[in-house]
Formats: sequence, structure tokens, C-alpha cells
Amino acid sequence: MKGKVILAYSGGLDTSVAIKWLQEEGYDVIACCLDVGEGKDLAFIQEKALQIGAVKSVVLDVKEEFLHEYAMMAMQAHALYEEKYPLVSALSRPLISKKLVEVAELEGAMAVAHGCTGKGNDQVRFEVSIHALAPHLKVLAPVREWKWSREEEINYAKEHNIPIPINLDNPFSIDQNAWGRSCECGMLENPWVAPPEEAYELTVSVEKAPDTADTIEIQFESGIPVALDGVIYPLPTLVKKLNELAGKHGVGRIDHVENRLVGIKSREVYECPGAMTLLKAHKELEDLTLVKEVAHFKPVIGKKLAEVIYNGLWFSPLKDALYAFLHETQKNVTGVVRVKLFKGHAIVEGRQSPYSLYNQELATYSAEDTFDQEAAVGFISLWGLPTKVHAEVHQKKVEV
Amino acid sequence: MKGKVILAYSGGLDTSVAIKWLQEEGYDVIACCLDVGEGKDLAFIQEKALQIGAVKSVVLDVKEEFLHEYAMMAMQAHALYEEKYPLVSALSRPLISKKLVEVAELEGAMAVAHGCTGKGNDQVRFEVSIHALAPHLKVLAPVREWKWSREEEINYAKEHNIPIPINLDNPFSIDQNAWGRSCECGMLENPWVAPPEEAYELTVSVEKAPDTADTIEIQFESGIPVALDGVIYPLPTLVKKLNELAGKHGVGRIDHVENRLVGIKSREVYECPGAMTLLKAHKELEDLTLVKEVAHFKPVIGKKLAEVIYNGLWFSPLKDALYAFLHETQKNVTGVVRVKLFKGHAIVEGRQSPYSLYNQELATYSAEDTFDQEAAVGFISLWGLPTKVHAEVHQKKVEV
Amino acid sequence: MKGKVILAYSGGLDTSVAIKWLQEEGYDVIACCLDVGEGKDLAFIQEKALQIGAVKSVVLDVKEEFLHEYAMMAMQAHALYEEKYPLVSALSRPLISKKLVEVAELEGAMAVAHGCTGKGNDQVRFEVSIHALAPHLKVLAPVREWKWSREEEINYAKEHNIPIPINLDNPFSIDQNAWGRSCECGMLENPWVAPPEEAYELTVSVEKAPDTADTIEIQFESGIPVALDGVIYPLPTLVKKLNELAGKHGVGRIDHVENRLVGIKSREVYECPGAMTLLKAHKELEDLTLVKEVAHFKPVIGKKLAEVIYNGLWFSPLKDALYAFLHETQKNVTGVVRVKLFKGHAIVEGRQSPYSLYNQELATYSAEDTFDQEAAVGFISLWGLPTKVHAEVHQKKVEV
Amino acid sequence: MKGKVILAYSGGLDTSVAIKWLQEEGYDVIACCLDVGEGKDLAFIQEKALQIGAVKSVVLDVKEEFLHEYAMMAMQAHALYEEKYPLVSALSRPLISKKLVEVAELEGAMAVAHGCTGKGNDQVRFEVSIHALAPHLKVLAPVREWKWSREEEINYAKEHNIPIPINLDNPFSIDQNAWGRSCECGMLENPWVAPPEEAYELTVSVEKAPDTADTIEIQFESGIPVALDGVIYPLPTLVKKLNELAGKHGVGRIDHVENRLVGIKSREVYECPGAMTLLKAHKELEDLTLVKEVAHFKPVIGKKLAEVIYNGLWFSPLKDALYAFLHETQKNVTGVVRVKLFKGHAIVEGRQSPYSLYNQELATYSAEDTFDQEAAVGFISLWGLPTKVHAEVHQKKVEV
Repeated sequence: MKGKVILAYSGGLDTSVAIKWLQEEGYDVIACCLDVGEGKDLAFIQEKALQIGAVKSVVLDVKEEFLHEYAMMAMQAHALYEEKYPLVSALSRPLISKKLVEVAELEGAMAVAHGCTGKGNDQVRFEVSIHALAPHLKVLAPVREWKWSREEEINYAKEHNIPIPINLDNPFSIDQNAWGRSCECGMLENPWVAPPEEAYELTVSVEKAPDTADTIEIQFESGIPVALDGVIYPLPTLVKKLNELAGKHGVGRIDHVENRLVGIKSREVYECPGAMTLLKAHKELEDLTLVKEVAHFKPVIGKKLAEVIYNGLWFSPLKDALYAFLHETQKNVTGVVRVKLFKGHAIVEGRQSPYSLYNQELATYSAEDTFDQEAAVGFISLWGLPTKVHAEVHQKKVEV
Repeated sequence: MKGKVILAYSGGLDTSVAIKWLQEEGYDVIACCLDVGEGKDLAFIQEKALQIGAVKSVVLDVKEEFLHEYAMMAMQAHALYEEKYPLVSALSRPLISKKLVEVAELEGAMAVAHGCTGKGNDQVRFEVSIHALAPHLKVLAPVREWKWSREEEINYAKEHNIPIPINLDNPFSIDQNAWGRSCECGMLENPWVAPPEEAYELTVSVEKAPDTADTIEIQFESGIPVALDGVIYPLPTLVKKLNELAGKHGVGRIDHVENRLVGIKSREVYECPGAMTLLKAHKELEDLTLVKEVAHFKPVIGKKLAEVIYNGLWFSPLKDALYAFLHETQKNVTGVVRVKLFKGHAIVEGRQSPYSLYNQELATYSAEDTFDQEAAVGFISLWGLPTKVHAEVHQKKVEV
Repeated sequence: MKGKVILAYSGGLDTSVAIKWLQEEGYDVIACCLDVGEGKDLAFIQEKALQIGAVKSVVLDVKEEFLHEYAMMAMQAHALYEEKYPLVSALSRPLISKKLVEVAELEGAMAVAHGCTGKGNDQVRFEVSIHALAPHLKVLAPVREWKWSREEEINYAKEHNIPIPINLDNPFSIDQNAWGRSCECGMLENPWVAPPEEAYELTVSVEKAPDTADTIEIQFESGIPVALDGVIYPLPTLVKKLNELAGKHGVGRIDHVENRLVGIKSREVYECPGAMTLLKAHKELEDLTLVKEVAHFKPVIGKKLAEVIYNGLWFSPLKDALYAFLHETQKNVTGVVRVKLFKGHAIVEGRQSPYSLYNQELATYSAEDTFDQEAAVGFISLWGLPTKVHAEVHQKKVEV
Repeated sequence: MKGKVILAYSGGLDTSVAIKWLQEEGYDVIACCLDVGEGKDLAFIQEKALQIGAVKSVVLDVKEEFLHEYAMMAMQAHALYEEKYPLVSALSRPLISKKLVEVAELEGAMAVAHGCTGKGNDQVRFEVSIHALAPHLKVLAPVREWKWSREEEINYAKEHNIPIPINLDNPFSIDQNAWGRSCECGMLENPWVAPPEEAYELTVSVEKAPDTADTIEIQFESGIPVALDGVIYPLPTLVKKLNELAGKHGVGRIDHVENRLVGIKSREVYECPGAMTLLKAHKELEDLTLVKEVAHFKPVIGKKLAEVIYNGLWFSPLKDALYAFLHETQKNVTGVVRVKLFKGHAIVEGRQSPYSLYNQELATYSAEDTFDQEAAVGFISLWGLPTKVHAEVHQKKVEV
């Protein structure tokens, strides 16, 4: 016997087959299903693993930790990979890895296993995260290792009495959590073709969105959304409500030809109704409350954080340092943002904050103006001085 | 007599009063109206300047130069100030400055004058640009200098028989060109209030947008849009058509609380139907044609270029160097993007290019897969090695 | 009477004259001399202010606060303005401003005054810092205001019985503190001329440096130097010892043509024997203890911090956020660095740390090698994949 | 037979054994020795390859191309990997790759081979470069493949009559070219131990450096050094002379614990007397001739270019775009820099340029001053406005 292995178990075909395959490799398999908000029948999944041969089957609800410790950081950073993708799956991988390691330590396991193939980003995120937390643990990747065709895999399942999921002819590969949903494969592999409606689940199309808007007020405290329309909710509830409401209005569809860490371009479709609504609202509150110099440098941090998260380096010390910067900027991101959800849009219509740095007396062109317009003369003179000296030296001629 | 001054003349109250005021200061005023696509009655404006007292009145059509040499650079760079504002007015100021300088040299003028107040960005853009091109020219800013209230200005106009524009009670301050329109002041000065419909002119509201989409194909050659639905157009025509079409569908409204260069936050509303449609389409074509390393670094250039343009440093050597980078990246940004214009959205549904780096054989999960999945094992091992060594040294413990 | 003004008093001609001038303007002048390690006769200065007419004269020793709270941040960030200047004066200005504000509040003063001219950086640093801490306080800049020539100033001094310093014919303008010394003006204004020996005070020339080296061991705890050759010292003592020792060996002379914030280039000469030795040693310890990803991103923070400090924005929230990043990176910058001081060099010869991430078993080419060389094959394959796909698409031809 | 392979041949043990090994694998080996300025006996090497069994042996002198097309770019960018390493070996690898590919095309070879192990950076640089230029070529890495111990390799050499180099007990691994020299292994693997004198060859120690300085004037035209002390030289001659002169004075030793691309830290010692002298002189000329905004952003480009070169991505389109930026900045980097070479230092004592932006009339504190000091008041007021508004809103209290 090779000891215990903790398998990240989803209930799907790949990881179901993996239970048996790992068993045949000589491991005692402990199936571990992490509930990050995928919305599955967890009791069924837990039971199924035992049926197939797992010596133990565990289900952990980590939705709250996921949203508080992972999703919020990405939202506050406005971390969008390649300016588009709000890192849905990339955010859940390190948390799942952490939980697998915790279970491995509790159970005295020698190894951890995941169901990723060899061409995606998630294998990197799992393996780097696991080794960052437990460098001694072995990481197994049965699907990458067995190299079977779909047909061979199904045959193996049938031979070993592993239940075949009924949606096996679903052409898409899906990942979902409380922060959103990703979809790839099938006809999406042709970037000239529009994504079909079947690729979406959390959102309606703009065509099917209702003809009347919902206008909501989102309240933030130090960069965290805490209330909707004045009612305080725990974060998982608030995000769920927003997902439903914004999804109903068709908000948050993303169609992205992206550069994977493993060197290829792929085409992915994402749905993040709640996340995209919160991202927009949060940015607008920052526009009001962050001082200019912070507002102009923070995107550098957000861009790097997006890369770090996408590239599987969540447990790198770099993330901690980036977060320290980020956290310091959120102290005063407090206030209310009014958002109109309508026909695929989350339109920010108004924003207010006790810490607003918008000063109407300085900004106004009315009689209340307190801005010292003469200061501008001196400012311009020195601001443009390097350019002017350069021009004088180089006798820049205008082509008349 | 103090000699000739070239006045950037718009036909509005401020610059009309400035003609007389400069005259009384002892200048011969040459009014110069630059047509950057504002859509005004130019013959009327030209005549009006003479009527008020200008010794000469010039109108120059610079729309084509504006779009080719100014707007395209911002589009290719995806230059959005504070991730929102596509630099509409900021782009026209250096071109207007350049033309004023050219006229000043032709006419042997001693000075150039603009109609900006002392609290906006445009005064900086004009003055720095003019001094970059002609460090010896004097720059006059009559509106900033006379410091009159609105009432005093109107009285002065009445006393001097200067025609008062009929839309004087328009609460907004507007600037418009072929690339878009900006609007500020009035009730917009309260950032909690939604912009009223009167603030918009180029776009309809989502509510009023048609119920059927228009789907168009935009063709780019080396980063420049050259054709719509297969028909080649000169750039001004193409942008005009897009402004109308996208405007009809309510695309391109932006509501922005922004940090001005002069140190205050202000709230601006922009409409850029054509520009925003082109920006989205161009980005998607880059996603397909730029190699990963370029795609990931180019936003650093775009962010800096946005700051340079917003801050009035168009004629700084830094812009030239940033543009050299940008230009090099556009060589292969050639192809067609299919865009659905609908209910305020410009949704990219498909993109194709002869230089597409998307390789379906590498990306596919089907039987045609040519990706070497075993390479991933080695890749992950070295990619995660620094994090793993760090973990080993620091014995990172997971909190169980 | 206009009330009390707190004057940053150095004992030199400018601020001595300012006491009288402010008095004549109607202020009660409280002279405040901040000891940041300039090495002056403080009792003499304190007395002199009273003699000239100050109603009160205060001396504050802030060396320890200066080194701990200001200099260390710059050192840990490797903050070098334009890759050369370790921010000596720029670091003391915010601290002096803070103390002036504290005294102003204690004394119930209406205003604060500094002795800067109108073309340097320090006026910006003082005024922005003071307004960041006490937006209501008035800031006076008598030297900038009176616009006298040197001769006129001396005449004023003579007429008012203000003692003229004996070193008045010193051609240089000097600023010094515990972190270093800056020198400008005089023949230094010609950038083709080598700085004369009289420009230096803390260091000998390489020619006069001793023929035998001193080799020292500097111990750091979490990024702070705590011991020299195994003996623990308070920071001010440690820096003083290093200044003397490294100065004796001619370490830390810097000759810099730099871009001032106010738009001009100026030529400055700096001496920072201790600071430059610590900067080099600290960097080497980081090379050993920081994980690659942190090491590669940290310079972005350091560069921005250098700009923030140079540009007088110490009390901006951006500095706090940058420092939060920085602080997080210093946790494990602990260990010993062996430095040879010799002929103007601080040569790091060895470095060791309990948190060293240098792993000899991975790095060695000897038989102890544990590095998995086969992993490299997969790594290279995916690392180079984007470039390879690009080459395939573009059929890049080599010119034979 | 497997066809022809082009082997990058150095004459050392590894690549000599590789000739025979590749022959036994069934290849016709064409040895190709690239002279990048290593200073070897090329005729001897060329002959040796034939003796061992190569079917053809080629020597190519590429020193001039190396310096002009590769080294100059790194110098102009001030590209220092981890702020220390001027990329000596990293610069030659792409050029060698290019030449190997050219020979492969001329000879109709199927494959190219290099002598790198599996844990260094050079394998990545070779393989990515070769595939960027000729994606269809096979790349062989015999040393990485055969996995012999040193002893096994020597036994194989003896058995096959391959001459064993006499310096086989040299504990160091060396690479050298016209731009510098790198040295690793042996006792250098202990980062606490000072590098022994035997590790160096191009430079003397500071202890042995002469007691009298050499002061030289280096003339640059558009960023390229063209003359020494007024005498124009071809670049290879100029660099060679500088290497000798600066090496004689002990300039350019670097001791670096660095992060390799393959994930480990290693300790390397570099000698770059000419390169470091040119880098310093070039930077000083830029300080004089670049406008502030360019000077402040250019390091971002230099840092990225250093990473791109170090990481083997020379033939990535990103390098071309970075170079386009760089090239644009060099137009006016023309002038003379006076450098004193002494005791390990290259001290810039003076710099002058026809395009100098240093304006003594603006910079001076003497009577010739033309700087408008009153402009500073307005400048400071607006520069500090965001910080001041923030302070007012947050009522920042000073701790008294």
C-alpha cells in the first residue's frame, strides 16, 4: 500500500474514474468535495465517492472563506486578467489546495490528487499552491497521467461500474463558484463564432432581459460590500442576491481569447453578474474617495495581482505584499453607490461617501468657486518647463 | 500696438468677448476656428468674428489629421485616463495648438490666445503645447485673466455689441469633436445625481435604443479601421458612420468622477459611440494577434500614454518614444471583428485574422490536440520552484 | 499683530534675516531648530535666534525619529531618485514639517515659515507636508518673497544688527543630516567641471583613502541594521559609526545632474558614506532572502517611493500604501553581510541568513545536485511556446 | 542516418564529447564555433573538431555584429538584471542561435545542438531563440541528455580518444565574450565566501590597481560610443581598448546571488570593465540630454528589456517594440563624458553635449538667474492640492 491520497472530488466523470484508478495504483482514496458555491447536490456527490470505492468522503462548505478571503481581494484590486477576466476559477484553486492540504495533514495522507489535464492553468495553480503549503506532499494528476481518449475513459468507467453522468454529451467544460462561472470547449473553440446561449447559465441574454430596470444601492465599508438597499447581509447572501438580480438583467457576460500560463491562446466564456456589478460600483466609490496619487498607482498593483493569481502564485510572498498595499488603500472606501441594472448593464448613476474627496466648492464653475485660478499660471509654467527647455534647445520647427 | 494675436475662436460667448477684450488691450486679433468635427456652422462663426472686430478670420478643417494622427494613437494604445475616459478633448488640444502656431508663424503674430479658464486641464494642454512648438510665442488667456462673473461678462458683451448666443442658459459646458463629446457643470456637479438626458446628444439612452441589433464587421489593417461591412471608407467617414450607428444604439456613454491635472476632482460626462466601439473591437483583434509577452506589457505603455496626453505633454519626446513602441506592435493587428450593436452594448461576437496566433490544434480538447501535456509537468516544477523553496525554508504551516 | 509664526531656523543668514523680516511684518517669531544630525552648535543657534528678536527659541533633537521612521524606509526600498540620489534632504523635510506643525499647535501659532527660495524642491516638500498635516496653517516663505539679491540681504542684515556668518563667502549651498550631506552652487553649476575637494566634508577622496581595508560585518533584523561586527548599537550610533568608517575610506560620493520637481535640471553633489554602505549591504541580503517574484517587483515600489519622497508627497496616503508593501517584504531580511570598505568601495564579500533561499543542493554542479534537469525540457517547451507559435505564423525568415 | 546536426562548438570537453556522442546517435556533425570575442585559439578549435569526427568545422567571427546589434541595446537601456548583471552571456546566446540557424539552413541540417546542462539559463535562451527563428528545427542538448557524472564523461572521452583539456581541474565554469566574462561553480557556490582572485581574469583587484588614474573622454553619437580621447574607433576596437584600460584599473567586478529563470538562486561572478564604464558614462550623458519625462519612464523599459533578454526572449516581438522606444530616446544622446578610471572606479567627472538640457541660467543661484520664482507658489498650491483636500476631509491629527 502507498498510503492515503486526498482527491479533490467534483462528482464528475474524471474524478470518479480517478478514485478507482488511484485505488488500483495502491492508494486509499479520501474524496474531498469543496463547496465553493458551485450549486451541486453535495450529499449525492459525497455518497457517490464512497460507492465507487473511496475509503472516506468529505464535503466542506468554504463559500464564506472563499468570498471573504479570496474574491474580495480581487474585487478591491480590480484585478482583471488581460483587462477582461475577473479570475473566477483562478481564485478558488488556492483555497481548494489549502483545504486539501489541511485534510491531508489531519488524515496523515502522503499525497494529494487533482483532476486537471495537462494543458490548462488549474494544474499549475493546484500544484504550486499545494507545494507552497506542504512542500513534502506528493501531488498526483491522474487525468494528465493516464492520457486516455474520452472513449477509453468511458470504457474504463463501464468496466469498473463507475456511474456515467447523464450530461456526458455536454460539449462544454464548466467550472463554477460563488463568484462566477467559466465555460470552454466545443464550438467556443472557434473564435469567429458567437457563443451559443447554451454556454450561459447564470445570465440571460440582453434580448431576454426585462424591459424595466432595477436600481439598487450598494453600501461598502472599507472596501467590502455590506448592504443592499440599506439592508445588511452576510457577504455570501449579498453576492448570491446580486448574482440573481444582475443575472436576471443579463449583466456580466465575458467572451475572452486569453493567453494561458502554459503558452497557448484559448477562448473562454465567463459569467460574473454579481462580481462585475461589484467591481464597477467599487471602482466608482474609489474614484470619489481615493486621493489622485493612490488612484493612479493602484492599477499597477492590481495588474500584478491579477497576474500572480492567474499564474497560480497565490501563496507566494508577493501576494502578501501586494495585499498589504491594497488593504491600506481600502480604509476609506466607504459609502453608497447607486447602480441601475438594465439590459446587460450595471450603470453607476450616483455615488456618495463620508470620505468623499470631491469638493464641490473647488470643482464648481458657479459663484461658490473657491479654486485659486491664478495658481494655474505658475503651475503651468513649471509643469511645462522641461518640454519648453527641450524645445528651445532643439529649435523644434513646425511644418507649416 | 502690440501686434497680432491668434485667437482660438469657437464662436461662443467667451471667445467672442475675448476678441473685443484683446482688441482693447491693443492687439490685432486674428480669429482662428479649428474644425475638429464639432459640427458647427463654420461660415457663420467665421463671419461673426469679423463682425465683432477681428482683423482676419480663418477656418481650418483638420478633422482628417485629427483622426489619423491623434485619435488613432489613443485607440491603438487603449489609452483610457483612469481606466474610463478615452481622451476626447485632450486629443484635440495639441492639434489646435499646432495649427495656432502655424498660423502665428504665417501671420507674424507675437502671441496666441485661448479661451480657457484657470481651473481646467485644457489651459495646461494649450500652453504647454504652444510653448513646445514655439517657445518664443506669448500665450494669452483672457478668460482666466479678466476674472469676471457671468453677469459681468454679459454686461461687457452688451456694452460692446457682441451677440449673445441664444443657448446661454444651457447649464452645461460642452466640448465636441469627431472622436466624441464631453459635458460638465450644472447639475452634473453633484456626483450622487444621475446625468439628465439633456446632458447627452450623440447617443440615445438604453431605454430608447432600438429593439433590433445591428451587427457589423469592422476591418483593421495594421491597427487602423479601414472598412465597415466590407466597404472601405476614409477614416473620417468611417468614424462618422460608426458614431451615428453606435450612437443610435446608445453605445459609449461615460460618467466619470476624475482627477484633473490641476489637483481637483470633477465630474464629467462623455459620449464616444464610435470611439468606444473601435476600442473594443481593436482590443479583441489584439487578443488574437499579439503574442502574450507584448499583450501583457503593452498596457503599461497605454497607461503612460494616457497620462501624457491627459496632462498636456503631447509634444514631449516621451510621447514619441511611447508611440514608437506602440507602432511596432500594430504591424499585425489586421483582421475582421464582428460587433453587435445593441442596447448600449458593442458586443464583439467574433474575430479573425490572417495573423491569428490562436492555434486550434494546440487549444482544442478534441482528438486533434497536438499540445504536449507532459511538458506541463516540467514547467510546473520549475515555475513553482521559488515558492516551494521559500515554503521549505519557512516551514509554512497551514492552520488546521 | 498677526500672531505667532513658527520659523524653521537653521542659524544661517537667510533664516536669521527672516526672524527680523517676519517681525517687521507683524509676527511674533518662534524660532525652531530641528536637529536631524547636521552637527551644528545648537546652543549657539538657539541663543542667536533670541538675540535677533525671536520671542522664543526651541531646539528639538529628532535624529532617532529621523533615522528610524524616515531613512530606514528609503533604505529598505532602495529608493534612489533617478537611480542615483538616496534622498538625503528629501527625507528630512517631512519630519521637520511635522515638528513645526506640532510646535505650531502647542504654541497656538497661525503660521509656519521656512527659508527656502523659489526654485528648489524643498519649498514644495515643506509646504505640501505642512498642509497635509495642518491644512489651516498659513505657510510663509520670506526668502522667496523678499526677492533680494545677496547684497541687499547683507545690507538688511547689517542695518538690523543681524550677525553675518563668517563663512559667507562659502560658494556652496549645503544641507546635512544624519543620513548624508548635499552640496550645490558655485563652480558645481558647470557640469563639465569635476567637483572640487572643498565640496566634500564627510568623505575623503579615493586618492587619500587608506591603503588598508576595513572589513566589517553588518547584521540586519527584519531589514533594520542592528549590529556592527557583532556589537548591537542604537540606530543613530550605528549610522554615525558607519558614516565615519565608510567616510574614512571615501565611500558614498555622488555627483548628479538631476531633474528637479520644479522643472529644471541642476547639478548636485552628495555624500552618504553610511547610507550607501547600508543600501548595498541590504540589497545583497535581499538577494539571498527574497523570493524571486518579490525581488523582481519590489523595484517598482522603490522607484515610486523615491518619486513620492523626492516630490514632497511623504504625507500622501500613497506613501502609506507603498510602505505597507515594503514592510511586508522585510520580515525575513535578517542575516549578516560582510563588507570590505576600501578606496571608495563598499564591497560585499559574503552574505548569510537563517532565511536564505539560496539552496546549494539545487545550485551546485557537483555530485550533491538535487535539481531535476529533465523538468527543464518541459519548462522550455511551454516558456517558448508563444514565441514559437508567433514564428510559425509569421514564417520569420533568417537573413542568410 | 539522421542527417546533419549543427553543433555550437566551444572546443571544451562537453562539446568535444558531444561530437562523438551525436555521431554515435547517427548524426553527421558540423561543428560551428562562434567567435563573440572569447579570445580563444580559433584555428586550433576548428581543427580539433575535425579530429574528433566532425564532418565539417566552421568558425565565424561575429564580434562586430555582437557589439553593434546586441551589446549596444543593453547598454543604451541600462539593462541590468536584478539591478546588477549587465547580461553578458545572455546577450550572446541569441546571436549564436541565429548563426547556428543560418548554418543549418545553408547546410540543410535537420537539427541544431548546444552543450548546455539542464539547470542553467542558457539552454532556455538557445532553444527559445532557435525555435523563434526556425520552428521546424530539432534542438538537441546532449549534455542534458546523457546525464553523466564528470568521471563518466572523462572515461567516455578517453575511450573515444577525445583530447582532455589541460585545465580540466579548473574549478570554475567560465563564459566570455567581447562584452565581459562570467564565472560560477567551485567555491563560489558558498555565498559567504569572497570570490578568490583566480575567479577573475579581465580585471585586477583594487589592491593591485595602479596608484595613478587614467582620465579619458568618451564621445557618444546618438547613444553609441564612437571615440576615445578624440580618436574615432570602430566599436570592437573601442570596447577592447576600454576593457584593457578599465580592467587595468580594476573596474567592473560584480558578485551576484541571482534568480535564474529555471527557479533557483545561484551565485555568479562577472567582470565587465568596458561595459560598466560605458554604462556609467552613457547614463550621465542621458542625465544631461533626456527630458525629465523620458528620463523617468525609460527605466521601466530598461527593466523589462533586461528581463526579456535574461529570460531568452530576444526574438520575441516584445524586444522589437521595447527597442523601438529605446531607439527613439537615443537621438540626442550625443556628447562627451570625462571618466576617471582609478582603483576600481569609473568616476564621471564631467559631461557636455550640444543637446544639453541643463540650462545654467535657470539653474544658477547667481545674478544671472532667469527662473521665475513666483511661478513656484502656484505650482506648489496645485501640486499639493489632492493631499491637502485629503487632509481636510480626514482631519489628519498630528500626534503632539
